[in-house]
Formats: sequence, C-alpha cells, structure tokens
Amino acid sequence: MASIFTKIIQGEIPCELVLQTNSEIAFLDINPSSKGHTLVVPKCEVARLEELPAEDAAALMQTLQRVARAVSRSLDNSDYNIVLNNGTNAGQEVPHVHFHIIPRPAGSSRPFRNKEAYAEGEMSRYGQQIRECLD
Amino acid sequence: MASIFTKIIQGEIPCELVLQTNSEIAFLDINPSSKGHTLVVPKCEVARLEELPAEDAAALMQTLQRVARAVSRSLDNSDYNIVLNNGTNAGQEVPHVHFHIIPRPAGSSRPFRNKEAYAEGEMSRYGQQIRECLD
Repeated sequence: MASIFTKIIQGEIPCELVLQTNSEIAFLDINPSSKGHTLVVPKCEVARLEELPAEDAAALMQTLQRVARAVSRSLDNSDYNIVLNNGTNAGQEVPHVHFHIIPRPAGSSRPFRNKEAYAEGEMSRYGQQIRECLD
Repeated sequence: MASIFTKIIQGEIPCELVLQTNSEIAFLDINPSSKGHTLVVPKCEVARLEELPAEDAAALMQTLQRVARAVSRSLDNSDYNIVLNNGTNAGQEVPHVHFHIIPRPAGSSRPFRNKEAYAEGEMSRYGQQIRECLD
C-alpha cells in the first residue's frame, strides 16, 4: 500500500520536515488550507485510523499534540483545526492515515477546501518557525 | 471552567450516550452535521488539546479509535471525518476539548457547517446501533 507518504518517509521525495519520531513524520502540506498547515503521518502503512495498532495510535496522539502546540506557538498562539479524512467520501486523498493541523489565526477563512499558496522561500520559513517552537 | 459538557459528564443534562470510560464520555451531537455524528469528550476539564495531560491524550486516542470504528460499522462501514476545533477562530463552540466523529456515507455532503435533523426517536436508534457495534 505504498503511497506518496511512503516515499516521503523513506526520503525519496523531499518535504519541509517539522519532526520525525520512531513512529511518525510531520511535514508541511504543499497545498495548504492555511499557511503552516502541517500533516502528521504515522509510519505504519495503513489507510484508515481503525486499522492503526493501539500502540501507534497512542504515540500518534502524543506527536499530534506536540506538533499542534508548535504550530500554534509559531503563529502567535493561533487557534487551529485538526482534521482526519477517513475514506474517499470523507475527502481522503492519500490512502495512508494522516491528520491535518490547520492554523486558524484571527480573521482566517474556515472552509477546509480553501487553499493558500506559499511565495518562493516562504514554506521553509514557516517550517523553521514551527521547528523552533517544538518542545 | 464548567461548560455544558461538565453537566453532561455529571449526568445533570441527559445525552444519547455511546460510551463512557474512566477518562472520556462519547455521545451523539444533538445538532449533527450528518446522522450518527458523535462527540468524544475527555473528562479532564481543559479547553484546548495542548492543555490535556499526555496520559489523558493517549487514552483519548484509544477511545476515539474505538468509537470511530463503531460509528463506521453501524453505518455500513461508512467513511468519516474526525475534527477538532481548537479555539473560537477554528469554530470551537464549547470551551472543553472534544473531537467530532462525522459519518460520511456515499453521496453525503461534506461541508462541515451543513446540519441534519433527527426525526422523533431517530437519535436514540442511531445511538443504539452505534453501541451495538462497539468492540
């Protein structure tokens, strides 16, 4: 069930890395709903949350919480949404379970389908700011 | 920081209960985005995910996974979204951290602000079906 995320995990496709642990990788979404939009992806290759072993699920929540805290801090303690799309009817685009962390600063638009675009070099600045805010 | 969820946890306000553990309560949203829409609420009274102690967060993911599995099974293995609104700019309406599990059967509409209404007695039938699908 290799997907584009497998290639990112294996380092075959580059990403703006936020954090890597034994069991997860977190990196910026290249097509963000809001700048700073970060994906948290378990390394375990399953499509759906209910297939993820309990141990990986517990570790995932810990990393999700840690990355969400950093994303928020990096953007003036921004509010945020966490979203999991489980299955194509739910909008899942990559068949490898992943959570979205979407910053919602004051005045941001909320519809999840809205997309923003990074200017050249901007994505790596967002990535660096988030990495500096990790605890 | 008592909210309506505190009253539900304490049994002062009734709910269509799906599951209760030592650390979480799960019940149907009375104003669903899609029928079967279920809330998973840690009993720990904090507003935001980043404030939740790590132990509660790990337990929360386990319950989230278990309830999501049951919601999906109860609706013909429906797809679903999991959503956390963290802060008012992100659409958080109750200042007590909670995850939404929103079923997305084939052909369902995805915008999260759409609302459906239960007919009389229908909500309790959905609740019963979900409870019967818990493992």
